[in-house]
Amino acid sequence: MPAFSRFTPLISALPATVPFVGPEAIERNRGLIVKARIGANENGFGPAPSAIEAMCGAAGETWKYADPENFDLKQALAAHLGCKAENIAVGEGIDSLLGLIVRLVIDPGLPVVTSFGAYPTFNFHVAGHGGRLVTVPYVDDRENLDGLLEAVHRENAPLIYFANPDNPMGSWWDADSIVAFAEALPETCLMILDEAYCETGPANAMPAISALIGRPNVIRTRTFSKAYGMAGSRVGYAITTPGTAQAFDKIRNHFGMNRIGVAAALAALKDQAYLSDVIGRIKASRDRIAGIAAANGLKPLPSATNFVAIDCGRDGAYARSIVDGLMEHGVFIRMPGVAPLNRCIRVSVGPESDMALLEEALPKVLKGF
Amino acid sequence: MPAFSRFTPLISALPATVPFVGPEAIERNRGLIVKARIGANENGFGPAPSAIEAMCGAAGETWKYADPENFDLKQALAAHLGCKAENIAVGEGIDSLLGLIVRLVIDPGLPVVTSFGAYPTFNFHVAGHGGRLVTVPYVDDRENLDGLLEAVHRENAPLIYFANPDNPMGSWWDADSIVAFAEALPETCLMILDEAYCETGPANAMPAISALIGRPNVIRTRTFSKAYGMAGSRVGYAITTPGTAQAFDKIRNHFGMNRIGVAAALAALKDQAYLSDVIGRIKASRDRIAGIAAANGLKPLPSATNFVAIDCGRDGAYARSIVDGLMEHGVFIRMPGVAPLNRCIRVSVGPESDMALLEEALPKVLKGF
Repeated sequence: MPAFSRFTPLISALPATVPFVGPEAIERNRGLIVKARIGANENGFGPAPSAIEAMCGAAGETWKYADPENFDLKQALAAHLGCKAENIAVGEGIDSLLGLIVRLVIDPGLPVVTSFGAYPTFNFHVAGHGGRLVTVPYVDDRENLDGLLEAVHRENAPLIYFANPDNPMGSWWDADSIVAFAEALPETCLMILDEAYCETGPANAMPAISALIGRPNVIRTRTFSKAYGMAGSRVGYAITTPGTAQAFDKIRNHFGMNRIGVAAALAALKDQAYLSDVIGRIKASRDRIAGIAAANGLKPLPSATNFVAIDCGRDGAYARSIVDGLMEHGVFIRMPGVAPLNRCIRVSVGPESDMALLEEALPKVLKGF
Repeated sequence: MPAFSRFTPLISALPATVPFVGPEAIERNRGLIVKARIGANENGFGPAPSAIEAMCGAAGETWKYADPENFDLKQALAAHLGCKAENIAVGEGIDSLLGLIVRLVIDPGLPVVTSFGAYPTFNFHVAGHGGRLVTVPYVDDRENLDGLLEAVHRENAPLIYFANPDNPMGSWWDADSIVAFAEALPETCLMILDEAYCETGPANAMPAISALIGRPNVIRTRTFSKAYGMAGSRVGYAITTPGTAQAFDKIRNHFGMNRIGVAAALAALKDQAYLSDVIGRIKASRDRIAGIAAANGLKPLPSATNFVAIDCGRDGAYARSIVDGLMEHGVFIRMPGVAPLNRCIRVSVGPESDMALLEEALPKVLKGF
């Protein structure tokens, strides 16, 4: 299949691998229908009705580009977080922000520290910019703070990725440990503190905004995709110093935000009552998933996120067969990509109808082995 | 303002300049209100009612990521265009696709050919990847095909950007000239043929899809932002060979598309009756703008786009003063950035209420000089 002959050497060497296969592709490829979509850490409880209303209200205005400065959204986020608008950069989901951050810091060959088995999309961006991944194994299903710090020093790494709470394991560190880690980092190393799941963790897991806001080498990333239930809206943001936040402006797509998504984010942010309610439902759904797992002899891990990692007690092939088997029943879930994490399956929260399907299908799948 | 100390040398050297200042920022900075938003080549006639309906219909589904393969949209575009889905890459507007293409091809120092005064956002991406812009002056307010080809050969350039119809001048070349140009290009040079305004040009200005679809070194970019009236939806696409289209998968944000935008694009594509109607209104609005210009002693240039460049007969400072003066009356327009193009102002089409505001304000502004 002829392609242009003169892509950069870096591009030519990149594989065509994809971080995640979407449930739609699984449906097409396997001729199956997803009945319970609980695999992508989406939030099946959905966006706030007030956000949906805002989306419809903005539909007629989509002939306009969104404000390239994202002024209103940055103001609202700043007021919500207790920082200044200048501390915030807005992007098309955390995925987009991660790509920009890697591009800001990584020239080909430079080392990038992350946990072995952490977020594949981050690794995709690192590969895409020619970075060299330096991975540190999880310890007891948590990211290994000491090991990560050691790797940063050993490699003189300019970039580290750390998620708290963690994906794919759902584990977390307490705020004091995170802050101590950030303070111990050399200022020549930029820390991405991915807080995609910040709303659903225990209160003591999240450093105060003020605790890290003065550090030019810390960027906290957050999103409306998870607790806010708007993954399809593609609205994420970064919190850092004004100086570091400005760097995004050098390379971001200034007109990249979709107008309806921004309107929805503004409405969702205002509706903290709905968010609280949903967080309650997420926590209940985590318990429900854990209960289903335990009832089937599997071991749910504690979770601070909108999903539960479930230890299936054997190897990655076994967990994979459960993932594939559940899909035969229309239950879409995922699993971690590498050992030893891949002894687990990963089930996202969802409404009771999804849980009932999982509850019905899981024993059938396990019985089949 | 402290920033992280170890951004790449390329990033550190980049200015914080922005391709376009949005009308919202002008409002904020100047304390004015935009009453006629006819400066950003948006389409004030708006999206199809069927597309708006699709947006509202999709709002409740925004808890799901969009299909990362954009399967349905690629199928629909392929059917519409008469090519295969494999010929298409989908992205968050042409701006995003341009950034990806530059990244695919440009290592620091490599030459990139474009017309002097052409699309600033493309230049922004070239700078952002360290490319070296090689510019060719417009001739008679059209991009200079012979000059561009000569520059490609002289520089052994791997990338050229060419818009047909052109922004900011609204001019165009006929299809045969475009095809001959593409055929004359060395296959080591990738041609971006930006057809953002393809729907509003004369029929003989657009090469058939089949005319260029076999060339791995030609990527045609199109959008739902202009004639379809959905700039805020951020849906663009590229048409090229399957091999070249696949290259986007190596670096794009696979989950970057917003779900409502995709739903809206599908609906808009189906509603060709509305598109035809809007194109009629765009053409009438071009005539209306031209009439207002002529009535004020200015010279409208022929346009194949959704805007009209108006020759104000003097220098850039004069045109700038008209742009700024109109904004005092709430009429937001823009102008080309460099001489000699910047003897013109650029007015986007819009509904009659906008035209009436322009008609009322322009003589007042001109009288003030």
